[in-house]
Amino acid sequence: MHVFYSVLQVIKCKAAVAWEYGKPLVTEEIEVAPPEANEVRIKIVATAVCHTDLYHLFEGMETELFPTILGHEAAGIVESVGSGVTEFHPGDKVIPLFINQCRECRFCKSPKTNHCEKGENGGHAKLAFEKSRITCKGKKLMPFMAIGSFSEYILMNQTAVAKIDPAAPLDKVCLIGCAISTGFGAAVNTAKVEAGSTCAVFGLGAVGLAAVMGCKFAGAERIIAVDINPKKAEKAKVFGATDFVNPKDQNKPISEVLAEMTSGGVDYSFECVGNVEVMRSALESSSAAWGVSVIVGWTDRYDFAARPIQLISGRTWKGSLFGGFKGKDGVSEMVRAYLQKKIKVDEFITHTKTLPQINEAIELMKSGQSIRTVLNVSSD
Amino acid sequence: MHVFYSVLQVIKCKAAVAWEYGKPLVTEEIEVAPPEANEVRIKIVATAVCHTDLYHLFEGMETELFPTILGHEAAGIVESVGSGVTEFHPGDKVIPLFINQCRECRFCKSPKTNHCEKGENGGHAKLAFEKSRITCKGKKLMPFMAIGSFSEYILMNQTAVAKIDPAAPLDKVCLIGCAISTGFGAAVNTAKVEAGSTCAVFGLGAVGLAAVMGCKFAGAERIIAVDINPKKAEKAKVFGATDFVNPKDQNKPISEVLAEMTSGGVDYSFECVGNVEVMRSALESSSAAWGVSVIVGWTDRYDFAARPIQLISGRTWKGSLFGGFKGKDGVSEMVRAYLQKKIKVDEFITHTKTLPQINEAIELMKSGQSIRTVLNVSSD
Repeated sequence: MHVFYSVLQVIKCKAAVAWEYGKPLVTEEIEVAPPEANEVRIKIVATAVCHTDLYHLFEGMETELFPTILGHEAAGIVESVGSGVTEFHPGDKVIPLFINQCRECRFCKSPKTNHCEKGENGGHAKLAFEKSRITCKGKKLMPFMAIGSFSEYILMNQTAVAKIDPAAPLDKVCLIGCAISTGFGAAVNTAKVEAGSTCAVFGLGAVGLAAVMGCKFAGAERIIAVDINPKKAEKAKVFGATDFVNPKDQNKPISEVLAEMTSGGVDYSFECVGNVEVMRSALESSSAAWGVSVIVGWTDRYDFAARPIQLISGRTWKGSLFGGFKGKDGVSEMVRAYLQKKIKVDEFITHTKTLPQINEAIELMKSGQSIRTVLNVSSD
Repeated sequence: MHVFYSVLQVIKCKAAVAWEYGKPLVTEEIEVAPPEANEVRIKIVATAVCHTDLYHLFEGMETELFPTILGHEAAGIVESVGSGVTEFHPGDKVIPLFINQCRECRFCKSPKTNHCEKGENGGHAKLAFEKSRITCKGKKLMPFMAIGSFSEYILMNQTAVAKIDPAAPLDKVCLIGCAISTGFGAAVNTAKVEAGSTCAVFGLGAVGLAAVMGCKFAGAERIIAVDINPKKAEKAKVFGATDFVNPKDQNKPISEVLAEMTSGGVDYSFECVGNVEVMRSALESSSAAWGVSVIVGWTDRYDFAARPIQLISGRTWKGSLFGGFKGKDGVSEMVRAYLQKKIKVDEFITHTKTLPQINEAIELMKSGQSIRTVLNVSSD
């Protein structure tokens, strides 16, 4: 066996490289090392652009974490595996994960969390950068979120790869690798929305729309979609929203508007923007007696805040990472749900492009025109 | 019947009046009107001094809510009742509540909250002031928290009175009217502490010690008591604490100390101080994967805050008002638990005084010498 693995070669392929913070991406030829022990090398078939990629490029201010290959919402096919990998074989359809699941640690064994003690993904960016074996012109490239899927090939630890149903169309289910699981799970797993309840979702990007879908799936009776972009109203209804409110059309705080609409506040609210003021509004929009508000949107530059009485009165403030799903289990379950038509996926995709068109895809998201642009990277 | 109620007279009695914000209380003769429809007039037998009384007197800055009669942690005997009151009769042992329970509204009918739609207590101080029928020298006195138990007699709406076991010693169970239920319930009802878990309690006043007792009652394996007053260590152990940490003895943030003691943070943490910085420390001391942190201490002057990732990672931030207990049900249940020796009460009482000694009792609390001083107001 050792001989077999040793014949694996470096792959030269295309990737969109973010050389510098705030600058457009550049399509380059990169070198992807062969998989080492416990690693899987994956040919990316499709990847979508998520707001978190844009956050790192334009908002996060972590200029030292460049050059990088962005992209983390993807699907592909196993190309080769390193020693010790028995779960995956070349040809398997997979989705790379930014949430590891080793199945052995105290976190993996607990139903209360989707953390994984062995995982180096998510929050260990510097380590992923140091250990990167992906290079361009002799320079190490950081695989963003330990994935870096704006590339024809990626290297993953086997604990951060989900095997999915071979029938799954990769140019659709790539969205399950981040946005759809994150929003849907925030409602179903984190908030545990109850049938008959009233919900509000702030921010109608893909994550927010998936939260709307999760509320609907859980049997919510009323789902109020909130966004400052009036064009989102129609899309929100596709996923189950019963009402749409544009805070800009109101002459009072959105929390008061929602309180009046729902006799005192919604049962569950979801912040899917990544803005600390919206996090507060979402909390305040929930019932003082029993409201549960979930922070789903990502930002790490400011504190969120509220007055103590707003929790003491009876509210619960939670956060949700990858919708509370354990990585491998959640993704394969969500792919099955899609194939069984229990959840929508196609409806999130507003545009399709190729990898070299990545900067156009980024512009579409920045300008609020797209929900999701899927980049077709390779044929499957 | 109408004739019977109409013969009820105004009662002239003693009370400790807080004429002005920040000033010592003055023992005065006051006039307490007869109970009107749905009201109960109660002879206070014992009342304790709680930090919330001191908050209103020294910290809350609501100078317009004076003159007032402070005091809300009390027990007494029904003296007379107004029309429409069938649950109470003269001679009943009772505890006045700052949490109403009408048993009829949507909140009372839900297991998810201890709010009561009919209640005017807790947060409606101005209304309680306007409607007050307790006067001194012709001036209306606000009954603090719609109770005002630093007085020989009080007037309560029947929805805010709990009937208790006639065997209960009133000079002990008065503490169940606030501190003990608040802290104990925060652990048992709000956090729902699990057997075998690890807990941290910040602030070891009566509420914090009751939270320690609640964690112990729920089967917590390790209970870390945290206070900047080293004298609290011994008392905490009486209620079940297994460890004591004084943040002043540490050269790193308390959250790091607790993380090291517990391989990554406690399962449950409780803020029982009423300080927004401590609220943050308590949150940060809990496990990023599944920590539940409960705000129990009272302050309304500042925002609490944290970084979004601290919730997104998997923590839950809650608050607890009266320990999540429904007023009438919770208090009578806690009194029974005391009589059955399932919970401690006597151990909270460090001093006993009489009503005219109220200012001494306040000093004992301000200086951190007392846990609870019980004022014997009348004989039962």
